[in-house]
Amino acid sequence: MSQTEEFTNICEAPIGVFDSGVGGLTVAREIMRNLPNERIVYFGDTARVPYGSKSKDTIIRFSRQIIRFLQTKKVKAIVIACNTASALALDEVEKDLDIPIIGVLKPGARAAVQTTQNGKVGVIATESTIHSHMYRKYICEQDPSVMVFGKPCPLFVPLVEEGWLKDSITEEVAHRYLEELLEVGIDSLILGCTHYPLLRSLIRRVVGDSVNLVNPAYETARELGELLRDQGIANPGYERQKAQERYQFYVSDAADKFKRFANSILPYDVETTKKINIEEY
Amino acid sequence: MSQTEEFTNICEAPIGVFDSGVGGLTVAREIMRNLPNERIVYFGDTARVPYGSKSKDTIIRFSRQIIRFLQTKKVKAIVIACNTASALALDEVEKDLDIPIIGVLKPGARAAVQTTQNGKVGVIATESTIHSHMYRKYICEQDPSVMVFGKPCPLFVPLVEEGWLKDSITEEVAHRYLEELLEVGIDSLILGCTHYPLLRSLIRRVVGDSVNLVNPAYETARELGELLRDQGIANPGYERQKAQERYQFYVSDAADKFKRFANSILPYDVETTKKINIEEY
Repeated sequence: MSQTEEFTNICEAPIGVFDSGVGGLTVAREIMRNLPNERIVYFGDTARVPYGSKSKDTIIRFSRQIIRFLQTKKVKAIVIACNTASALALDEVEKDLDIPIIGVLKPGARAAVQTTQNGKVGVIATESTIHSHMYRKYICEQDPSVMVFGKPCPLFVPLVEEGWLKDSITEEVAHRYLEELLEVGIDSLILGCTHYPLLRSLIRRVVGDSVNLVNPAYETARELGELLRDQGIANPGYERQKAQERYQFYVSDAADKFKRFANSILPYDVETTKKINIEEY
Repeated sequence: MSQTEEFTNICEAPIGVFDSGVGGLTVAREIMRNLPNERIVYFGDTARVPYGSKSKDTIIRFSRQIIRFLQTKKVKAIVIACNTASALALDEVEKDLDIPIIGVLKPGARAAVQTTQNGKVGVIATESTIHSHMYRKYICEQDPSVMVFGKPCPLFVPLVEEGWLKDSITEEVAHRYLEELLEVGIDSLILGCTHYPLLRSLIRRVVGDSVNLVNPAYETARELGELLRDQGIANPGYERQKAQERYQFYVSDAADKFKRFANSILPYDVETTKKINIEEY
Protein backbone atom coordinates (compact mmCIF):
# COMPACT_ATOMS: atom_id res chain seq x y z
CA MET A 1 0.00 0.00 0.00
CA SER A 2 2.75 2.41 0.93
CA GLN A 3 4.44 1.71 -2.41
CA THR A 4 1.28 2.71 -4.28
CA GLU A 5 1.06 5.76 -2.06
CA GLU A 6 4.59 6.78 -2.93
CA PHE A 7 3.98 6.18 -6.64
CA THR A 8 0.84 8.26 -6.54
CA ASN A 9 2.78 11.02 -4.83
CA ILE A 10 5.57 11.32 -7.32
CA CYS A 11 3.13 11.34 -10.26
CA GLU A 12 1.28 14.20 -8.67
CA ALA A 13 4.45 16.19 -8.06
CA PRO A 14 4.96 19.27 -10.23
CA ILE A 15 7.36 19.87 -13.11
CA GLY A 16 9.94 22.57 -12.36
CA VAL A 17 10.43 24.95 -15.29
CA PHE A 18 12.94 27.79 -15.24
CA ASP A 19 14.18 30.60 -17.42
CA SER A 20 16.15 33.82 -17.11
CA GLY A 21 12.87 35.72 -17.20
CA VAL A 22 9.57 35.66 -19.04
CA GLY A 23 10.67 33.96 -22.27
CA GLY A 24 10.37 30.46 -20.81
CA LEU A 25 6.64 31.02 -20.53
CA THR A 26 6.46 30.04 -24.21
CA VAL A 27 7.78 26.63 -23.10
CA ALA A 28 5.46 26.47 -20.08
CA ARG A 29 2.55 27.26 -22.43
CA GLU A 30 3.41 24.25 -24.63
CA ILE A 31 3.64 22.00 -21.56
CA MET A 32 0.22 23.24 -20.40
CA ARG A 33 -1.25 22.51 -23.84
CA ASN A 34 0.36 19.11 -24.36
CA LEU A 35 0.39 17.74 -20.82
CA PRO A 36 -2.71 19.23 -19.22
CA ASN A 37 -2.56 16.83 -16.27
CA GLU A 38 0.79 18.13 -15.06
CA ARG A 39 1.37 20.76 -12.40
CA ILE A 40 4.09 23.34 -13.00
CA VAL A 41 6.30 25.40 -10.71
CA TYR A 42 7.83 28.14 -12.87
CA PHE A 43 10.79 30.29 -11.86
CA GLY A 44 11.89 33.40 -13.84
CA ASP A 45 15.19 34.99 -12.80
CA THR A 46 14.02 38.53 -13.48
CA ALA A 47 16.59 40.09 -11.10
CA ARG A 48 19.52 38.80 -13.17
CA VAL A 49 17.98 38.61 -16.67
CA PRO A 50 19.32 38.37 -19.38
CA TYR A 51 21.60 35.31 -19.44
CA GLY A 52 22.50 35.51 -23.14
CA SER A 53 25.66 37.60 -22.81
CA LYS A 54 27.00 36.07 -19.58
CA SER A 55 29.70 33.49 -18.91
CA LYS A 56 29.36 29.73 -18.48
CA ASP A 57 30.53 29.82 -14.83
CA THR A 58 27.94 32.40 -13.91
CA ILE A 59 25.10 30.64 -15.73
CA ILE A 60 26.01 27.35 -13.98
CA ARG A 61 26.01 29.08 -10.59
CA PHE A 62 22.62 30.76 -11.26
CA SER A 63 21.13 27.46 -12.54
CA ARG A 64 22.31 25.55 -9.43
CA GLN A 65 20.64 28.13 -7.16
CA ILE A 66 17.39 27.85 -9.09
CA ILE A 67 17.44 24.04 -9.08
CA ARG A 68 17.94 24.08 -5.29
CA PHE A 69 14.91 26.36 -5.02
CA LEU A 70 12.79 24.12 -7.30
CA GLN A 71 13.75 21.08 -5.22
CA THR A 72 12.23 22.73 -2.14
CA LYS A 73 8.98 22.55 -4.16
CA LYS A 74 9.42 18.74 -4.53
CA VAL A 75 9.45 18.79 -8.33
CA LYS A 76 9.63 15.36 -10.03
CA ALA A 77 11.45 16.64 -13.15
CA ILE A 78 13.02 19.88 -14.35
CA VAL A 79 12.86 21.65 -17.71
CA ILE A 80 15.49 24.30 -18.44
CA ALA A 81 13.29 26.51 -20.60
CA CYS A 82 16.14 28.94 -21.33
CA ASN A 83 18.29 28.18 -24.38
CA THR A 84 21.38 29.84 -22.90
CA ALA A 85 21.17 27.88 -19.63
CA SER A 86 20.41 24.68 -21.60
CA ALA A 87 23.54 25.29 -23.69
CA LEU A 88 25.90 26.29 -20.90
CA ALA A 89 24.67 24.56 -17.73
CA LEU A 90 22.68 21.37 -18.52
CA ASP A 91 25.71 19.05 -18.80
CA GLU A 92 27.06 20.31 -15.47
CA VAL A 93 23.91 20.42 -13.38
CA GLU A 94 22.50 17.06 -14.45
CA LYS A 95 25.46 15.35 -12.77
CA ASP A 96 24.23 16.39 -9.31
CA LEU A 97 20.57 15.47 -9.80
CA ASP A 98 18.59 12.33 -9.00
CA ILE A 99 15.52 13.52 -10.92
CA PRO A 100 15.34 13.88 -14.72
CA ILE A 101 16.26 17.24 -16.24
CA ILE A 102 15.97 18.29 -19.88
CA GLY A 103 16.86 21.40 -21.81
CA VAL A 104 15.38 22.89 -24.96
CA LEU A 105 18.41 22.36 -27.23
CA LYS A 106 18.32 18.60 -27.82
CA PRO A 107 14.61 18.56 -28.73
CA GLY A 108 15.14 21.54 -31.02
CA ALA A 109 18.17 19.91 -32.65
CA ARG A 110 16.28 16.65 -33.21
CA ALA A 111 13.36 18.44 -34.85
CA ALA A 112 15.67 20.37 -37.17
CA VAL A 113 17.44 17.19 -38.28
CA GLN A 114 14.07 15.60 -39.06
CA THR A 115 12.89 18.70 -40.92
CA THR A 116 15.82 19.62 -43.14
CA GLN A 117 15.83 18.34 -46.73
CA ASN A 118 19.04 19.93 -47.98
CA GLY A 119 21.11 19.40 -44.83
CA LYS A 120 21.58 23.11 -44.11
CA VAL A 121 20.20 24.25 -40.77
CA GLY A 122 20.35 27.79 -39.38
CA VAL A 123 20.32 28.62 -35.67
CA ILE A 124 19.50 32.05 -34.29
CA ALA A 125 20.06 32.58 -30.57
CA THR A 126 21.88 34.67 -27.97
CA GLU A 127 25.62 35.21 -28.19
CA SER A 128 26.35 32.73 -25.39
CA THR A 129 24.21 30.00 -26.97
CA ILE A 130 25.79 30.44 -30.43
CA HIS A 131 29.34 30.60 -29.07
CA SER A 132 28.78 27.41 -27.05
CA HIS A 133 28.26 25.54 -30.38
CA MET A 134 25.92 23.17 -28.51
CA TYR A 135 23.21 23.17 -31.19
CA ARG A 136 25.88 22.12 -33.68
CA LYS A 137 27.09 19.41 -31.30
CA TYR A 138 23.61 17.94 -30.76
CA ILE A 139 22.76 18.08 -34.47
CA CYS A 140 26.09 16.44 -35.33
CA GLU A 141 25.39 13.61 -32.86
CA GLN A 142 22.12 12.94 -34.69
CA ASP A 143 23.37 13.35 -38.24
CA PRO A 144 26.92 14.49 -38.97
CA SER A 145 26.05 15.24 -42.61
CA VAL A 146 23.95 18.24 -41.58
CA MET A 147 25.72 21.61 -41.69
CA VAL A 148 24.83 24.13 -39.02
CA PHE A 149 25.07 27.91 -39.46
CA GLY A 150 24.75 29.95 -36.25
CA LYS A 151 23.97 33.66 -35.94
CA PRO A 152 23.67 35.59 -32.66
CA CYS A 153 20.76 38.08 -32.69
CA PRO A 154 21.25 40.11 -29.51
CA LEU A 155 18.75 42.84 -30.45
CA PHE A 156 15.76 40.50 -30.82
CA VAL A 157 15.13 40.16 -27.08
CA PRO A 158 15.12 43.94 -26.38
CA LEU A 159 12.96 44.50 -29.49
CA VAL A 160 10.42 41.95 -28.22
CA GLU A 161 10.51 43.55 -24.78
CA GLU A 162 9.95 46.97 -26.37
CA GLY A 163 6.82 45.40 -27.92
CA TRP A 164 7.93 46.09 -31.51
CA LEU A 165 6.82 42.66 -32.72
CA LYS A 166 5.60 43.78 -36.16
CA ASP A 167 7.65 46.93 -36.55
CA SER A 168 9.55 48.09 -39.64
CA ILE A 169 12.70 48.61 -37.53
CA THR A 170 12.50 45.05 -36.22
CA GLU A 171 12.06 43.80 -39.77
CA GLU A 172 15.16 45.71 -40.89
CA VAL A 173 17.16 44.25 -38.00
CA ALA A 174 15.89 40.77 -38.94
CA HIS A 175 16.95 41.30 -42.56
CA ARG A 176 20.42 42.27 -41.41
CA TYR A 177 20.76 39.29 -39.07
CA LEU A 178 19.22 36.66 -41.37
CA GLU A 179 20.79 37.72 -44.68
CA GLU A 180 23.87 35.51 -44.38
CA LEU A 181 21.81 32.46 -43.39
CA LEU A 182 19.61 32.93 -46.45
CA GLU A 183 22.70 33.37 -48.65
CA VAL A 184 24.08 29.96 -47.66
CA GLY A 185 20.67 28.44 -48.47
CA ILE A 186 19.36 27.04 -45.16
CA ASP A 187 15.99 25.30 -45.38
CA SER A 188 15.38 25.04 -41.61
CA LEU A 189 15.82 27.70 -38.95
CA ILE A 190 15.86 26.96 -35.22
CA LEU A 191 14.35 29.77 -33.13
CA GLY A 192 16.99 29.19 -30.45
CA CYS A 193 15.86 31.69 -27.82
CA THR A 194 12.52 31.59 -26.02
CA HIS A 195 11.65 35.15 -27.03
CA TYR A 196 11.99 34.48 -30.75
CA PRO A 197 8.71 32.58 -31.31
CA LEU A 198 7.04 35.90 -30.50
CA LEU A 199 8.68 37.25 -33.68
CA ARG A 200 7.60 34.22 -35.70
CA SER A 201 5.37 35.97 -38.26
CA LEU A 202 7.94 38.73 -38.88
CA ILE A 203 10.76 36.17 -39.30
CA ARG A 204 8.48 34.20 -41.63
CA ARG A 205 8.12 37.28 -43.85
CA VAL A 206 11.89 37.80 -43.94
CA VAL A 207 12.91 34.20 -44.69
CA GLY A 208 10.00 33.33 -47.02
CA ASP A 209 7.90 30.19 -47.19
CA SER A 210 10.68 27.80 -48.21
CA VAL A 211 12.43 27.89 -44.81
CA ASN A 212 10.98 25.76 -42.03
CA LEU A 213 10.86 27.47 -38.63
CA VAL A 214 11.62 25.13 -35.72
CA ASN A 215 10.30 26.09 -32.28
CA PRO A 216 12.13 24.07 -29.61
CA ALA A 217 9.39 24.88 -27.07
CA TYR A 218 6.93 22.61 -28.85
CA GLU A 219 9.44 19.77 -29.23
CA THR A 220 10.50 20.08 -25.60
CA ALA A 221 6.95 19.63 -24.34
CA ARG A 222 6.61 16.52 -26.52
CA GLU A 223 9.88 15.05 -25.25
CA LEU A 224 8.96 15.84 -21.67
CA GLY A 225 5.74 13.85 -22.16
CA GLU A 226 7.70 10.84 -23.46
CA LEU A 227 10.18 11.07 -20.61
CA LEU A 228 7.45 11.14 -17.96
CA ARG A 229 5.70 8.16 -19.53
CA ASP A 230 8.97 6.19 -19.92
CA GLN A 231 9.86 6.75 -16.29
CA GLY A 232 6.31 6.03 -15.11
CA ILE A 233 5.96 9.40 -13.44
CA ALA A 234 3.33 11.04 -15.68
CA ASN A 235 0.26 12.29 -13.86
CA PRO A 236 -2.41 9.87 -15.14
CA GLY A 237 -5.50 11.35 -13.50
CA TYR A 238 -7.53 14.14 -14.97
CA GLU A 239 -6.56 17.14 -12.91
CA ARG A 240 -9.61 18.78 -11.41
CA GLN A 241 -7.78 21.72 -9.91
CA LYS A 242 -8.19 25.05 -11.59
CA ALA A 243 -5.20 26.40 -13.54
CA GLN A 244 -4.67 28.97 -10.77
CA GLU A 245 -3.96 26.13 -8.34
CA ARG A 246 -2.10 23.87 -10.76
CA TYR A 247 0.47 26.42 -11.86
CA GLN A 248 2.73 28.37 -9.52
CA PHE A 249 4.98 31.28 -10.54
CA TYR A 250 8.06 32.61 -8.77
CA VAL A 251 10.45 35.37 -9.81
CA SER A 252 13.51 37.09 -8.35
CA ASP A 253 12.24 40.61 -9.14
CA ALA A 254 9.25 42.67 -10.26
CA ALA A 255 6.46 40.14 -9.74
CA ASP A 256 3.70 42.45 -11.04
CA LYS A 257 5.46 43.17 -14.31
CA PHE A 258 6.01 39.43 -14.78
CA LYS A 259 2.33 38.73 -14.12
CA ARG A 260 1.24 41.21 -16.79
CA PHE A 261 3.53 39.59 -19.36
CA ALA A 262 2.43 36.09 -18.31
CA ASN A 263 -1.20 37.04 -18.78
CA SER A 264 -0.48 38.16 -22.34
CA ILE A 265 1.15 34.81 -23.18
CA LEU A 266 -0.70 32.13 -21.20
CA PRO A 267 -4.17 30.84 -22.00
CA TYR A 268 -5.51 31.67 -18.50
CA ASP A 269 -5.13 34.47 -15.96
CA VAL A 270 -2.24 34.19 -13.53
CA GLU A 271 -3.49 35.40 -10.15
CA THR A 272 -0.33 35.48 -8.07
CA THR A 273 3.38 35.57 -8.68
CA LYS A 274 5.72 35.40 -5.69
CA LYS A 275 9.05 37.15 -5.44
CA ILE A 276 11.88 35.26 -3.70
CA ASN A 277 15.54 36.05 -3.02
CA ILE A 278 17.23 33.48 -5.26
CA GLU A 279 20.71 34.37 -3.97
CA GLU A 280 19.81 32.66 -0.70
CA TYR A 281 19.56 29.21 -2.35
CA MET B 1 51.99 63.45 13.97
CA SER B 2 49.42 60.70 14.00
CA GLN B 3 46.77 63.18 12.92
CA THR B 4 48.85 64.17 9.91
CA GLU B 5 49.43 60.52 9.24
CA GLU B 6 45.71 59.82 9.30
CA PHE B 7 44.99 62.81 7.08
CA THR B 8 47.62 61.69 4.61
CA ASN B 9 46.04 58.27 4.60
CA ILE B 10 42.51 59.30 3.87
CA CYS B 11 43.61 61.64 1.06
CA GLU B 12 45.47 58.78 -0.54
CA ALA B 13 42.51 56.42 -0.30
CA PRO B 14 40.77 55.56 -3.56
CA ILE B 15 37.39 56.70 -4.91
CA GLY B 16 34.91 53.82 -5.29
CA VAL B 17 32.99 53.98 -8.58
CA PHE B 18 30.28 51.49 -9.50
CA ASP B 19 27.91 50.72 -12.33
CA SER B 20 25.73 47.88 -13.56
CA GLY B 21 28.43 47.05 -16.12
CA VAL B 22 30.76 48.85 -18.48
CA GLY B 23 28.78 52.07 -19.00
CA GLY B 24 30.13 53.68 -15.84
CA LEU B 25 33.57 53.68 -17.41
CA THR B 26 32.50 56.88 -19.19
CA VAL B 27 32.22 58.41 -15.69
CA ALA B 28 35.52 56.85 -14.53
CA ARG B 29 37.16 58.32 -17.63
CA GLU B 30 36.01 61.84 -16.71
CA ILE B 31 37.30 61.38 -13.15
CA MET B 32 40.67 60.23 -14.51
CA ARG B 33 40.84 63.31 -16.77
CA ASN B 34 39.67 65.86 -14.23
CA LEU B 35 41.18 64.47 -11.03
CA PRO B 36 44.39 62.82 -12.16
CA ASN B 37 45.73 62.56 -8.60
CA GLU B 38 42.93 60.29 -7.42
CA ARG B 39 43.00 56.51 -7.29
CA ILE B 40 39.90 54.60 -8.38
CA VAL B 41 38.42 51.22 -7.49
CA TYR B 42 35.79 50.45 -10.14
CA PHE B 43 33.14 47.73 -9.83
CA GLY B 44 30.91 46.64 -12.76
CA ASP B 45 28.04 44.28 -11.92
CA THR B 46 28.33 42.36 -15.20
CA ALA B 47 26.64 39.23 -13.77
CA ARG B 48 23.38 41.10 -13.13
CA VAL B 49 23.50 43.82 -15.81
CA PRO B 50 21.29 45.62 -16.88
CA TYR B 51 19.65 47.50 -14.00
CA GLY B 52 17.40 49.70 -16.17
CA SER B 53 14.32 47.48 -16.16
CA LYS B 54 14.55 46.21 -12.56
CA SER B 55 12.74 47.23 -9.40
CA LYS B 56 13.78 49.70 -6.73
CA ASP B 57 14.06 47.00 -4.03
CA THR B 58 16.39 44.93 -6.14
CA ILE B 59 18.57 47.88 -7.17
CA ILE B 60 18.89 48.94 -3.52
CA ARG B 61 19.92 45.40 -2.52
CA PHE B 62 22.48 45.18 -5.33
CA SER B 63 23.86 48.65 -4.48
CA ARG B 64 24.26 47.75 -0.79
CA GLN B 65 26.24 44.63 -1.68
CA ILE B 66 28.52 46.64 -3.96
CA ILE B 67 29.05 49.38 -1.36
CA ARG B 68 30.01 46.72 1.22
CA PHE B 69 32.54 45.37 -1.28
CA LEU B 70 33.97 48.85 -2.01
CA GLN B 71 34.33 49.51 1.73
CA THR B 72 36.64 46.49 2.00
CA LYS B 73 38.88 48.49 -0.38
CA LYS B 74 38.90 51.44 2.10
CA VAL B 75 37.45 53.95 -0.35
CA LYS B 76 37.18 57.54 0.94
CA ALA B 77 34.13 58.40 -1.22
CA ILE B 78 31.75 56.62 -3.59
CA VAL B 79 30.37 57.62 -6.99
CA ILE B 80 27.29 55.77 -8.25
CA ALA B 81 28.15 55.98 -11.94
CA CYS B 82 24.91 54.24 -12.96
CA ASN B 83 21.90 56.51 -13.60
CA THR B 84 19.39 53.82 -12.62
CA ALA B 85 21.11 53.10 -9.29
CA SER B 86 21.54 56.85 -8.67
CA ALA B 87 17.81 57.34 -9.26
CA LEU B 88 16.55 54.36 -7.25
CA ALA B 89 19.14 53.69 -4.53
CA LEU B 90 21.13 56.83 -3.62
CA ASP B 91 18.61 58.22 -1.12
CA GLU B 92 18.44 54.87 0.68
CA VAL B 93 22.09 53.88 0.76
CA GLU B 94 23.49 57.26 1.82
CA LYS B 95 21.66 56.90 5.14
CA ASP B 96 23.94 54.01 6.18
CA LEU B 97 27.23 55.58 5.13
CA ASP B 98 29.82 57.65 6.97
CA ILE B 99 31.72 58.56 3.81
CA PRO B 100 30.40 60.87 1.08
CA ILE B 101 28.49 59.30 -1.80
CA ILE B 102 27.23 61.02 -4.95
CA GLY B 103 25.21 59.92 -7.95
CA VAL B 104 25.16 61.19 -11.51
CA LEU B 105 21.62 62.63 -11.48
CA LYS B 106 22.04 65.76 -9.36
CA PRO B 107 25.10 66.98 -11.29
CA GLY B 108 23.30 66.25 -14.56
CA ALA B 109 20.17 68.07 -13.38
CA ARG B 110 22.18 71.09 -12.25
CA ALA B 111 23.97 71.35 -15.59
CA ALA B 112 20.69 71.15 -17.51
CA VAL B 113 19.13 73.94 -15.42
CA GLN B 114 22.17 76.14 -16.11
CA THR B 115 22.06 75.32 -19.82
CA THR B 116 18.40 75.69 -20.77
CA GLN B 117 17.25 79.00 -22.18
CA ASN B 118 13.60 78.20 -22.87
CA GLY B 119 12.99 76.12 -19.71
CA LYS B 120 12.25 72.88 -21.57
CA VAL B 121 14.60 70.03 -20.72
CA GLY B 122 14.44 66.52 -22.17
CA VAL B 123 15.75 63.43 -20.36
CA ILE B 124 16.50 60.15 -22.08
CA ALA B 125 17.30 57.19 -19.85
CA THR B 126 16.30 53.64 -18.93
CA GLU B 127 12.71 52.82 -18.02
CA SER B 128 13.47 52.63 -14.29
CA THR B 129 15.24 56.00 -14.27
CA ILE B 130 12.44 57.75 -16.18
CA HIS B 131 9.67 56.17 -14.10
CA SER B 132 11.42 57.21 -10.87
CA HIS B 133 10.95 60.89 -11.95
CA MET B 134 14.13 61.72 -10.02
CA TYR B 135 15.61 63.93 -12.75
CA ARG B 136 12.38 65.96 -12.63
CA LYS B 137 12.59 66.14 -8.83
CA TYR B 138 16.20 67.37 -8.81
CA ILE B 139 15.56 69.89 -11.58
CA CYS B 140 12.45 71.14 -9.80
CA GLU B 141 14.44 71.64 -6.59
CA GLN B 142 16.85 73.87 -8.52
CA ASP B 143 14.30 75.76 -10.59
CA PRO B 144 10.60 74.88 -10.51
CA SER B 145 9.93 76.91 -13.66
CA VAL B 146 11.77 74.35 -15.79
CA MET B 147 9.60 71.72 -17.48
CA VAL B 148 11.05 68.22 -17.79
CA PHE B 149 10.09 65.75 -20.53
CA GLY B 150 11.27 62.17 -19.97
CA LYS B 151 11.54 59.41 -22.56
CA PRO B 152 12.76 55.86 -21.87
CA CYS B 153 15.02 54.54 -24.65
CA PRO B 154 15.45 50.83 -23.78
CA LEU B 155 16.97 49.88 -27.17
CA PHE B 156 19.92 52.30 -26.96
CA VAL B 157 21.97 50.12 -24.57
CA PRO B 158 21.66 46.91 -26.65
CA LEU B 159 22.37 48.93 -29.84
CA VAL B 160 25.56 50.31 -28.27
CA GLU B 161 26.52 46.83 -27.11
CA GLU B 162 25.92 45.50 -30.63
CA GLY B 163 28.43 48.15 -31.73
CA TRP B 164 25.97 49.90 -34.08
CA LEU B 165 27.06 53.38 -32.97
CA LYS B 166 26.73 55.05 -36.37
CA ASP B 167 24.21 52.72 -37.96
CA SER B 168 21.13 53.67 -40.00
CA ILE B 169 18.97 51.38 -37.82
CA THR B 170 20.20 53.11 -34.66
CA GLU B 171 19.45 56.46 -36.28
CA GLU B 172 15.91 55.34 -37.11
CA VAL B 173 15.38 54.16 -33.52
CA ALA B 174 16.74 57.51 -32.27
CA HIS B 175 14.32 59.40 -34.55
CA ARG B 176 11.42 57.38 -33.17
CA TYR B 177 12.45 57.93 -29.54
CA LEU B 178 13.39 61.60 -29.81
CA GLU B 179 10.57 62.82 -32.07
CA GLU B 180 8.18 63.74 -29.24
CA LEU B 181 10.90 65.59 -27.32
CA LEU B 182 11.69 67.66 -30.41
CA GLU B 183 7.98 68.35 -30.97
CA VAL B 184 7.61 69.93 -27.52
CA GLY B 185 10.64 72.10 -28.28
CA ILE B 186 13.29 71.10 -25.71
CA ASP B 187 16.55 73.04 -25.94
CA SER B 188 18.57 70.78 -23.59
CA LEU B 189 18.76 67.01 -23.52
CA ILE B 190 20.23 65.04 -20.62
CA LEU B 191 21.97 61.83 -21.75
CA GLY B 192 20.66 60.03 -18.65
CA CYS B 193 22.31 56.64 -19.08
CA THR B 194 26.04 56.03 -19.09
CA HIS B 195 25.93 54.27 -22.47
CA TYR B 196 24.31 57.19 -24.27
CA PRO B 197 27.39 59.46 -24.58
CA LEU B 198 28.73 56.75 -26.92
CA LEU B 199 25.82 57.67 -29.26
CA ARG B 200 26.52 61.38 -28.90
CA SER B 201 27.32 62.16 -32.56
CA LEU B 202 24.32 60.19 -33.83
CA ILE B 203 21.98 61.89 -31.33
CA ARG B 204 23.49 65.23 -32.34
CA ARG B 205 22.52 64.54 -35.98
CA VAL B 206 18.95 63.65 -34.98
CA VAL B 207 18.30 66.60 -32.64
CA GLY B 208 20.20 69.23 -34.63
CA ASP B 209 22.54 71.96 -33.41
CA SER B 210 19.98 73.95 -31.43
CA VAL B 211 19.63 71.34 -28.66
CA ASN B 212 22.32 71.23 -25.99
CA LEU B 213 23.46 67.74 -25.02
CA VAL B 214 24.21 67.37 -21.30
CA ASN B 215 26.55 64.55 -20.25
CA PRO B 216 26.20 63.95 -16.50
CA ALA B 217 29.53 62.08 -16.44
CA TYR B 218 31.47 65.30 -16.99
CA GLU B 219 29.44 67.24 -14.39
CA THR B 220 29.79 64.42 -11.87
CA ALA B 221 33.59 64.44 -12.10
CA ARG B 222 33.55 68.19 -11.53
CA GLU B 223 31.25 67.92 -8.49
CA LEU B 224 33.32 65.09 -7.08
CA GLY B 225 36.39 67.34 -7.27
CA GLU B 226 34.56 70.11 -5.37
CA LEU B 227 33.33 67.66 -2.75
CA LEU B 228 36.82 66.25 -2.14
CA ARG B 229 38.27 69.75 -1.78
CA ASP B 230 35.43 70.94 0.50
CA GLN B 231 35.90 67.95 2.79
CA GLY B 232 39.69 68.23 2.69
CA ILE B 233 40.13 64.71 1.36
CA ALA B 234 41.44 65.43 -2.14
CA ASN B 235 44.74 63.80 -2.97
CA PRO B 236 47.09 66.81 -3.18
CA GLY B 237 50.28 65.10 -4.26
CA TYR B 238 51.18 64.38 -7.81
CA GLU B 239 50.59 60.67 -8.11
CA ARG B 240 53.70 58.94 -9.40
CA GLN B 241 52.16 55.52 -9.76
CA LYS B 242 51.39 54.31 -13.26
CA ALA B 243 47.72 54.20 -14.28
CA GLN B 244 47.86 50.41 -14.02
CA GLU B 245 48.58 50.73 -10.29
CA ARG B 246 46.32 53.70 -9.61
CA TYR B 247 43.17 52.17 -11.08
CA GLN B 248 41.69 48.83 -10.06
CA PHE B 249 38.82 47.06 -11.81
CA TYR B 250 36.47 44.42 -10.42
CA VAL B 251 33.47 42.74 -12.06
CA SER B 252 30.96 40.03 -11.13
CA ASP B 253 31.27 38.20 -14.48
CA ALA B 254 33.29 37.91 -17.69
CA ALA B 255 36.42 39.86 -16.69
CA ASP B 256 38.10 39.47 -20.10
CA LYS B 257 35.17 40.88 -22.04
CA PHE B 258 35.04 43.82 -19.62
CA LYS B 259 38.76 44.46 -20.09
CA ARG B 260 38.39 44.60 -23.87
CA PHE B 261 35.58 47.14 -23.58
CA ALA B 262 37.49 49.16 -20.96
CA ASN B 263 40.49 49.36 -23.27
CA SER B 264 38.33 50.81 -26.03
CA ILE B 265 37.03 53.56 -23.71
CA LEU B 266 39.87 54.45 -21.34
CA PRO B 267 42.94 56.46 -22.28
CA TYR B 268 45.36 53.73 -21.10
CA ASP B 269 45.54 49.93 -21.22
CA VAL B 270 43.86 48.06 -18.38
CA GLU B 271 46.09 45.11 -17.50
CA THR B 272 43.97 43.16 -15.05
CA THR B 273 40.32 42.94 -14.09
CA LYS B 274 39.33 40.68 -11.20
CA LYS B 275 36.11 38.74 -10.97
CA ILE B 276 34.47 38.50 -7.54
CA ASN B 277 31.25 36.90 -6.27
CA ILE B 278 29.27 40.01 -5.33
CA GLU B 279 26.42 37.96 -3.81
CA GLU B 280 28.74 37.13 -0.90
CA TYR B 281 28.87 40.77 0.24
